[in-house]
Amino acid sequence: MIEIRDRIKNKALHEKIMTAEAAAALIKDGMNIGASGFTPAGYPKAVPLALAKLAKEKPLKVNVWTGASVGAEFDGALAETNAIQKRLPYQTNDLLRKQINSGQVQYLDLHLSHTAQMSRYGFLVGSVDIALLEVCAIKEDGSLVPTTSMGNTASFVHSAKKVIVEVNITQPEQLECMHDAYLPQDPPHRSYIPIHSPGDRIGRTSIPCDPDKIIAIVPCDIIDGTRPLAPIDDDAKAMSGHLIEFLQHEIKQGRLPENLLPLQSGVGSVANAVISGLCDSPFENLSVYTEVIQDGMFDLIDAGKLTIASGTSLSPSPAALKRFHSNLDKYCPKIILRPLEIANSPEVARRLGVIAMNTAIEFDIYGHVNSTHTLGTKMMNGIGGSGDFARNGYLTFFFTNSTAKGGAISSVVPMCSHIDHTEHDTDVFITERGVADVRGLSPKERARVIIKNTAHPDYQPLLLDYLERAEKATGFAHTPHLLKEAFSFHTRFMETGTMKK
Amino acid sequence: MIEIRDRIKNKALHEKIMTAEAAAALIKDGMNIGASGFTPAGYPKAVPLALAKLAKEKPLKVNVWTGASVGAEFDGALAETNAIQKRLPYQTNDLLRKQINSGQVQYLDLHLSHTAQMSRYGFLVGSVDIALLEVCAIKEDGSLVPTTSMGNTASFVHSAKKVIVEVNITQPEQLECMHDAYLPQDPPHRSYIPIHSPGDRIGRTSIPCDPDKIIAIVPCDIIDGTRPLAPIDDDAKAMSGHLIEFLQHEIKQGRLPENLLPLQSGVGSVANAVISGLCDSPFENLSVYTEVIQDGMFDLIDAGKLTIASGTSLSPSPAALKRFHSNLDKYCPKIILRPLEIANSPEVARRLGVIAMNTAIEFDIYGHVNSTHTLGTKMMNGIGGSGDFARNGYLTFFFTNSTAKGGAISSVVPMCSHIDHTEHDTDVFITERGVADVRGLSPKERARVIIKNTAHPDYQPLLLDYLERAEKATGFAHTPHLLKEAFSFHTRFMETGTMKK
Repeated sequence: MIEIRDRIKNKALHEKIMTAEAAAALIKDGMNIGASGFTPAGYPKAVPLALAKLAKEKPLKVNVWTGASVGAEFDGALAETNAIQKRLPYQTNDLLRKQINSGQVQYLDLHLSHTAQMSRYGFLVGSVDIALLEVCAIKEDGSLVPTTSMGNTASFVHSAKKVIVEVNITQPEQLECMHDAYLPQDPPHRSYIPIHSPGDRIGRTSIPCDPDKIIAIVPCDIIDGTRPLAPIDDDAKAMSGHLIEFLQHEIKQGRLPENLLPLQSGVGSVANAVISGLCDSPFENLSVYTEVIQDGMFDLIDAGKLTIASGTSLSPSPAALKRFHSNLDKYCPKIILRPLEIANSPEVARRLGVIAMNTAIEFDIYGHVNSTHTLGTKMMNGIGGSGDFARNGYLTFFFTNSTAKGGAISSVVPMCSHIDHTEHDTDVFITERGVADVRGLSPKERARVIIKNTAHPDYQPLLLDYLERAEKATGFAHTPHLLKEAFSFHTRFMETGTMKK
Repeated sequence: MIEIRDRIKNKALHEKIMTAEAAAALIKDGMNIGASGFTPAGYPKAVPLALAKLAKEKPLKVNVWTGASVGAEFDGALAETNAIQKRLPYQTNDLLRKQINSGQVQYLDLHLSHTAQMSRYGFLVGSVDIALLEVCAIKEDGSLVPTTSMGNTASFVHSAKKVIVEVNITQPEQLECMHDAYLPQDPPHRSYIPIHSPGDRIGRTSIPCDPDKIIAIVPCDIIDGTRPLAPIDDDAKAMSGHLIEFLQHEIKQGRLPENLLPLQSGVGSVANAVISGLCDSPFENLSVYTEVIQDGMFDLIDAGKLTIASGTSLSPSPAALKRFHSNLDKYCPKIILRPLEIANSPEVARRLGVIAMNTAIEFDIYGHVNSTHTLGTKMMNGIGGSGDFARNGYLTFFFTNSTAKGGAISSVVPMCSHIDHTEHDTDVFITERGVADVRGLSPKERARVIIKNTAHPDYQPLLLDYLERAEKATGFAHTPHLLKEAFSFHTRFMETGTMKK
């Protein structure tokens, strides 16, 4: 067995060390598991793998609550043995996605900032039966030191009747200095969150835990299954260029300070490329108040442009994870990992005036955004924190390539087939074609700017034709639509394989 | 001329007293007017009437920014002489609605909590050229005492180059004690809003104003054109009954304290009836943290059930306005009127754990809500503050009658024809038929509860048929839809006059 006793400073807890198999056996059918993990970072691995094995032998279903997505050793392994009944609030596993889109798994796609408080409020059917988390150390007082993500762990540990801990020896104890665990009270006793700058620390570096709640401690040496990022292509470079030009214009107009405002950036290759692109920008002394810290932010730190990065998860590509581990002294002091409900707090996002930058699956001519469903029905991943930031940011951007599937899909459509962000919440749209700034515009004004500046030329005539016929048919109503044709792009694609006519 | 000099304590300002006509002449074509007023309460009347007259003689267009809706003397009069170019963030005037839905007026339907900061951020095309407001008094230091609403007035006065003030002598100076003017700083200098209980006072009773900015003071004796409320019918009583029963159950389950949490309630007859119904409930020591204070809250004060009502506007029916004026000593100490961005603050709503109760035009089987558009195209009024509260409240309700137009319209539809609140933001739906509590449910689970508990029996089979066919066609996808039929209820109504088959 892997030796973890030196990572457990509370000696009385040594007797709770056991195998993953023994710990998994403590998890019963129908339980709600509140787990650590966020965008495959800092999630438990050994116990879920063992639990999946158990479920293979004897059918068993659990409900899995996390911070966000976890790795293949968790969502993947449990999905393979049909062991997930209900899953929330976000996931990215292929097999689990199939189960969600075939009615086998009940999936709750939640605003990430809502999950912890909803679980404490008792809104999620039952409470946390077992908190299951990965740590790099357990301190003398029983408090738990997370690894690469904070997510909802502090809240789950607080609420849980029992706690199972995996000690991952591939993660250094030095990670402790990044964490800032803070648990808000609930109404009517909640106080303000005392963050006035992305670097403010308001909590502790470890998560308080009554040692008596800990029922099992399991060694683990599996590293985070983080995903490589797609290489930065010309489209991503173009979007990054548009963003930088736009921000420079905003500074010139006095609408943004020279060092901008704290940046929030969504997860994935496009978002990462946009952040990376800022290395070549004229901006200095940038700060980040976001959800996930990706490769691009290491680039910004290396370029001397980033004073602080606050998030809830450190989710670099495998290459960048190595880079991080080799340069802990350089990166750790620039990084704070907070509980999800603080990282994504509407209160803090609005106070700091976050610049919210997220990726859309599609947006429509009036500025609604679909972040979650393909063709209105199939769940892709989930809304994640995009709504927490888009609604409360100072300035809200959505990015996407103007087309997908080799041009067969237009990302700009007459009406979104699913809506996650309404026109009330969006300011600026960026594709590789350009920038549509819809602030201060009415719907019909927005439509022309969005079609002209962001849609692909192949689709501009179709979109304009729809708009003009809708205007005529409705007598220039506030938001002209032809309800029978609103999804014609989507149905054409389903029938012919392309949205083109 | 009406005598207002005793209402103007700063004697030097007496020389700025002039007629409404003279003041209106100071407003130029193309200007942005930042006006007081919220759900026809506390809006300027004499100057808009005079401006409308001027526009009749010589065409003139202005952009009108307010707190929310204003009365016929403002929106109505200016619409009649085609004097409005752009209007934001909310309105309810019939003629102006026609102009919005025929392309004559550009309308921006904004989250009400966003308006003031967007205007300060410079996001609304230009800044406030003239602030135009109704007051009951001007103090020695030039500060302005609003009448029956706070809205965005403090921010508009702060930003404006020039200020025109109407002193309304029908409103007593005693109103001052209700007000709590507080202007937040903007990022990166914004601090937390120090409200931890609905009764907390954080500002001043009058709005600071440099006397040099005041270019005109106009007397006025026109009373607020508030609207009578519909009588409380059986459907409204049923909804109120469902709510009370539901809340009692939540208390029993330990999910709400005995005196509930601060109540927020939308505007209009249904919302008012629901609040009024609480008089006959077992709840005591209630508090209100809302946008608009309507008749029902006076009823709750009279019943000894309400400790404090915080809002941004006092908008009772004409009868209740008289009742208020005759009982100032009783009602004023129980009422606080705050700037809109504080009354509707996401930060405060989430901290206090507001119980958000708003009215829907329609909602769909998956829990999306349309608050603004009829048949997806025509603007009714606007989103108002519903999104500020629905997104950030502890518990989010939407109310509506299960049908409209004598049963020809179902308020529960397969897919909303316009979406203002997404499924991520909604918890409980109430119609006269019953309660659908969708917390903790996945979309397909939600659909069955919503159809069964809230839809009218005439439409239940149609909705269930849609759901089942959509499930089959999509292989039980996460959110089953038939894109070609998603708006079939709406198009059938347009073609046959009923959503029934």
